Amino acid sequence: MLKNAFYAQSGGVTSVINASACGVIETARKYSDKIGNVFAGKNGIIGALQEDLIDTSLESDKDIAALRYTPSGAFGSCRFKLKGIDENRVEYERLIEVFKAHNIGYFFYNGGGDSADTCYKVSQISKNLGFPVQAIHVPKTVDNDLPITDNCPGFGSVAKYVAISTREASFDVASMAKTSTKVFVLEVMGRHAGWIAAAGALAADEKNNIPVVILFPEVKFDQKKFLALVDKKVKSHGYCTIIVSEGAQYEDGKFLAEQGTRDAFGHAQLGGAAPVVANMIKDALGYKFHWAVADYLQRAARHIASKTDVEQAYAVGKSAVEMALKGESSIMTTIKRISNNPYQWEIGKAPLSEVANVEKFMPREFISDDGFSITPACRQYLEPLILGEDYPPYKNGLPDYVTLKNQLVARQLKEFLV
Amino acid sequence: MLKNAFYAQSGGVTSVINASACGVIETARKYSDKIGNVFAGKNGIIGALQEDLIDTSLESDKDIAALRYTPSGAFGSCRFKLKGIDENRVEYERLIEVFKAHNIGYFFYNGGGDSADTCYKVSQISKNLGFPVQAIHVPKTVDNDLPITDNCPGFGSVAKYVAISTREASFDVASMAKTSTKVFVLEVMGRHAGWIAAAGALAADEKNNIPVVILFPEVKFDQKKFLALVDKKVKSHGYCTIIVSEGAQYEDGKFLAEQGTRDAFGHAQLGGAAPVVANMIKDALGYKFHWAVADYLQRAARHIASKTDVEQAYAVGKSAVEMALKGESSIMTTIKRISNNPYQWEIGKAPLSEVANVEKFMPREFISDDGFSITPACRQYLEPLILGEDYPPYKNGLPDYVTLKNQLVARQLKEFLV
Repeated sequence: MLKNAFYAQSGGVTSVINASACGVIETARKYSDKIGNVFAGKNGIIGALQEDLIDTSLESDKDIAALRYTPSGAFGSCRFKLKGIDENRVEYERLIEVFKAHNIGYFFYNGGGDSADTCYKVSQISKNLGFPVQAIHVPKTVDNDLPITDNCPGFGSVAKYVAISTREASFDVASMAKTSTKVFVLEVMGRHAGWIAAAGALAADEKNNIPVVILFPEVKFDQKKFLALVDKKVKSHGYCTIIVSEGAQYEDGKFLAEQGTRDAFGHAQLGGAAPVVANMIKDALGYKFHWAVADYLQRAARHIASKTDVEQAYAVGKSAVEMALKGESSIMTTIKRISNNPYQWEIGKAPLSEVANVEKFMPREFISDDGFSITPACRQYLEPLILGEDYPPYKNGLPDYVTLKNQLVARQLKEFLV
Repeated sequence: MLKNAFYAQSGGVTSVINASACGVIETARKYSDKIGNVFAGKNGIIGALQEDLIDTSLESDKDIAALRYTPSGAFGSCRFKLKGIDENRVEYERLIEVFKAHNIGYFFYNGGGDSADTCYKVSQISKNLGFPVQAIHVPKTVDNDLPITDNCPGFGSVAKYVAISTREASFDVASMAKTSTKVFVLEVMGRHAGWIAAAGALAADEKNNIPVVILFPEVKFDQKKFLALVDKKVKSHGYCTIIVSEGAQYEDGKFLAEQGTRDAFGHAQLGGAAPVVANMIKDALGYKFHWAVADYLQRAARHIASKTDVEQAYAVGKSAVEMALKGESSIMTTIKRISNNPYQWEIGKAPLSEVANVEKFMPREFISDDGFSITPACRQYLEPLILGEDYPPYKNGLPDYVTLKNQLVARQLKEFLV
């Protein structure tokens, strides 16, 4: 009897994580002589623990194909990190119990650093418990902070969104600057790594000459230097655009977003680095400002996803199944850059032991000397990742995203609460 | 000698105001036997007052065509309202003096309600001063608040952006809701009228069943009713999406955005209705939230403009020139809806005396009884306006927007400072 596969989405979702799901499921369907059903965890790994398994075989080929252009996590995701095996053996044993009950021999886990760690532990403990499962991690994170892989699916599309939004808003501010707004501040994601913020610099080229100032989490915030630079840009260009990472922080590690702002009740305002930066400029330099916080809009913006990103997201899912069928386990599929010009890439693999719990930050040589921009090397790295458009189909003026049936398999075990 | 034309952009720019400029200039070029050069005001009407006239004849046909897909105001806009004629006769006289010096017989003013008023006054005073200029207003405003015209160019694209972003972010929240974010708040523009906020409701259809709650500026904020509704939606759907207009306000007229928030220095925080609403929900109901403020991103998002909107923006510019050549003056070109299904429209005209200083709010019958959603009549009104996509060309993964040369004509008059 063919072994079934389990697939789950983990952590913050992206505009292309479903493209990876599509790659996994379509490839499994293609090899239906070698691999059984694909069960998806309802709300990620919680679905496995609670035996809430979605039967993807009940979804039509058309709906599965539509995952390729549908943002978010079609099966639900979760923020839930399994503890170490010693602290929490019962959860790992439960996982294996569920896998046994449903004849699951393949574990495809689609997530970031934490889930790579979980995936690694599952592969180990399943062996120890005498029910070995081939565990393969499918990379996903807008933060672009996984090691070994050249880049992470999900990132390219956020980068494209941020670059385009920065260009568009900068054109807007340039039009208004004579009598009104002179400073525009856009807050983007990336609590620890400045990859997303860096993408804002791509908005500028020799033709439009947009003045972009970036606040990276990797560079301690120097208010005096920053204000002087903004003032200089406004004086030379008439306006200035600022991209601030949500993780931008002072010398002492305090986030800009935690600037001591209080609401009417005296509660600390959970804030937004953008309004803090904008008001700081207003107070010091007097320039009229506007600010935006992109938040989920940036990572859900499938309408303007990077074609490169979509193709890579699909490929890491597809290859995960192909590698599993070749007997691989305890690996993550990776993206390897072969050349920059023309941009060429291929799928590789990395042992999970080297992936788990390693974070990749912006290298110092990608950040300009003054700390407020990117270097040509960084631009060369980023540019291929936003190449190409991959528009979803539209209906009534809106993207026609799919909502799956998500029917659960009958439970065979006792209830387990997480 | 053929009369020249003056064209200027006024107030907040949009993703399609340059499409109107394109309509004006391309049509004037087509009728080069009847109309001379088109001079564009550098930074709007200030350019006319200061005699900073951009010579559009120096721009190539290709670059003028590129205006059709370039957001923002290519010649610069301004927030500058001419005072009444009695208070500020000198500015009107100066305008006529500049028009005389450059043989300008046509005045095309592209803006919202305030500029319709200016346009009206120019048409009147030019007659009184013995140098009659045909003044035609080209409608533009994301706020959709001009009277007589069925809708305003600029609005359809913002509506499309808000509807798409709401759908995408809602898919994201739905994925995360099991263990994390349950409430997403998106703040949109519209200080007086809730047209833009209303567009958020288009995100939901029978397939995806997205729970959207809207806070309109037209409906006084009832915190108790609002929190009860959000709680109900989270309990029934697992999550809730809230669209809050920047103009949402309490019974006493105080904006939600002015919730008494203070920064570390005790300054009133200029700040965002979205974080106020999000924190209010967290305090009362305990739900984890995310919030976004779209700000300029929504009105600059040419990458996902409504095709209908682009076509209408072009048409109101084109028709303004055609009507001028037929001898019309003191009018605004308008959009007339002929039918809903299929959506059909044509260009009309309205006397500026009936347009100036009239604001069109959401009619009460477009807002649901509970005040938190739209009615089927409103949906029927909105849906055609977001129909169709009109993608700009891309280069290196980014929209290839044009930046014009914007060369000024030699001044012939003495300096005039505004």
